[in-house]
Amino acid sequence: MANVRLIPADLLRRQLIAVFETWGMLPEHIATTVEVMVTTDLSGVDSHGLGMLPAYHLRRSQGIVKDKPDIRIVREKPAVALIDADRSLGHPPSVMAMQLAVKKAKAVGVAVVGVRNSNHFGAAGYYSRMATGLGAIGMAMTNAPGPAMVPTFGREAVLGTNPIAFAAPATTNPPFALDMATTTVAVGKLNIARRLGKAIPEGWAFNDSGAPETDGAAAYAARRLTPLGGDRERGSHKGYGLATMVEILCAVLTGSWSDGPETAGQRTKHNVGHFFLAIDPALVRPDGEFQDDMDRMIDMLHATPAADPANPVQVAGDAEVRMTAYRTEHGIPVAETLIEETRRVAEESGAPFLFG
Amino acid sequence: MANVRLIPADLLRRQLIAVFETWGMLPEHIATTVEVMVTTDLSGVDSHGLGMLPAYHLRRSQGIVKDKPDIRIVREKPAVALIDADRSLGHPPSVMAMQLAVKKAKAVGVAVVGVRNSNHFGAAGYYSRMATGLGAIGMAMTNAPGPAMVPTFGREAVLGTNPIAFAAPATTNPPFALDMATTTVAVGKLNIARRLGKAIPEGWAFNDSGAPETDGAAAYAARRLTPLGGDRERGSHKGYGLATMVEILCAVLTGSWSDGPETAGQRTKHNVGHFFLAIDPALVRPDGEFQDDMDRMIDMLHATPAADPANPVQVAGDAEVRMTAYRTEHGIPVAETLIEETRRVAEESGAPFLFG
Repeated sequence: MANVRLIPADLLRRQLIAVFETWGMLPEHIATTVEVMVTTDLSGVDSHGLGMLPAYHLRRSQGIVKDKPDIRIVREKPAVALIDADRSLGHPPSVMAMQLAVKKAKAVGVAVVGVRNSNHFGAAGYYSRMATGLGAIGMAMTNAPGPAMVPTFGREAVLGTNPIAFAAPATTNPPFALDMATTTVAVGKLNIARRLGKAIPEGWAFNDSGAPETDGAAAYAARRLTPLGGDRERGSHKGYGLATMVEILCAVLTGSWSDGPETAGQRTKHNVGHFFLAIDPALVRPDGEFQDDMDRMIDMLHATPAADPANPVQVAGDAEVRMTAYRTEHGIPVAETLIEETRRVAEESGAPFLFG
Repeated sequence: MANVRLIPADLLRRQLIAVFETWGMLPEHIATTVEVMVTTDLSGVDSHGLGMLPAYHLRRSQGIVKDKPDIRIVREKPAVALIDADRSLGHPPSVMAMQLAVKKAKAVGVAVVGVRNSNHFGAAGYYSRMATGLGAIGMAMTNAPGPAMVPTFGREAVLGTNPIAFAAPATTNPPFALDMATTTVAVGKLNIARRLGKAIPEGWAFNDSGAPETDGAAAYAARRLTPLGGDRERGSHKGYGLATMVEILCAVLTGSWSDGPETAGQRTKHNVGHFFLAIDPALVRPDGEFQDDMDRMIDMLHATPAADPANPVQVAGDAEVRMTAYRTEHGIPVAETLIEETRRVAEESGAPFLFG
């Protein structure tokens, strides 16, 4: 990539802290949010770490994101809980939710914690992977503030890119860690094509009459993504179905489905909901048997003969582990445009700009 | 379809009972298995009802399926349980598992019940939909006895078609009910193309060198399906990741992952595992609020403008509801080849043949 600067993780951390301190965020919320964002940038998910700061800044200025939210548990049973995030940035209530889900799972076997009244929580995969660090299987989902997915046979976007993240711990291998939008590609891939002036493959996006759109810039502007599968013949009803499942668990179950379709535009303002699930495998298979068999399964997948020996079969999470090691040593590549946007956020917030 | 006969549901029910009685199955296991199979045929999932009887007959003759299994709970906590199916046909332990999951969910909020040492359980969607009949959100998954999915970048099949079913109840609409293989298409679609001598679209299957296979007969013989997404550019790593998630929850979590890759062929014999999850929405959103908002969401999806007005946007489960109503009235279309196979199963079992 051209026009990229390498920013050490610690410098990124200090820059984010400096901005959030000027916002008046609570120290524990700053610590949590910065940890999630930096971990995400280190793992290579550039769209969901520092890349979100300008949007958070904008939503704060619009009164959508609250600086000092009162995040609290509003309902609780042995295996479920519901958290009201009070319009917090999504990271603090989500870390709290997954911690609670794992704690409950260790007591009774499995637990679900929902979050309502939240905002963008970064990368879903952070939270499922977090569960594995606590010895649990983790699942994280979120609905999305803006419509981007066109249902099979439809002409307009009515669901978000509604991601699913799932992670499970092994003994010697890194955790299996899947984090996927239920659209064929994420919005960020259209933006990359737009910037490069490139065409996109048929099957990623539609134009406004429901036909395939292959112009990157037009696709980014239209924001009408296909569900995973691309078209009906190749299973797009499955991607659409999975996205609806995410909407049900994140929005309907948490009470975040408070806006009808006609106000879909306003849904960018509030009522983002998240869903977290944790399973303690030790209550089903004792003595680390689960983690040991995870290794056997991961090793089997890695040993699958490759179509091209230069391009071996991977397991979800492999790329993020490699990227985290590389970026921890060499720094995080940040586009100059994002560095400039960060400068503007810092200046407008009254925070020092540290990338200068 | 040519060469099809319409069989009334009650006649199908009596034929299945007659066969299973000669097998010496326990009356309660017969009742459960027949109910699941007939419901599945009525709903239009022809591959997973009567269509499986010849395979069950074969596996019984091979000693894989046990006539009088001792199905028992081998581990239990407030929100999880593990059932050993003792090589039963999959239907009885699966109904038992989902009933237990819903009962536990109503007590603590959410529950997971795993099943190990099982066999083919029919259509996953039966069990998730069953949960909605009990007022719960349901999820059902199974790993599959024979490898059929080629991982992204791979050349050989190492995972099954590993389906995911999810269902949630509404107040006035039928339940949302998703039931999907994590491959682009199920094996049955290749068989249809083979019988018709037709080509299949690129993106469904591979040949043995890892290139796309478009000949239906060759694809059916090779049994190398693409993960949902089709190829890497269109997100096949997501379908592969979801299939791995299913393998983890159904095989690794239940202790059914007892065979390494080199014995994948033998995995057709035993150690099929299932995963069932139930959530009681009333413990998160009281007084039917969940079901009411489900209606609002389903209505919104149905109201999405269609690309072709003659082909409206559907919601998962719609087709099965329509089909069940139609077939309950008109009968279930059964191919003459399957009628002949059923005659053979009946004769070899010493049961009366009732379709004559």
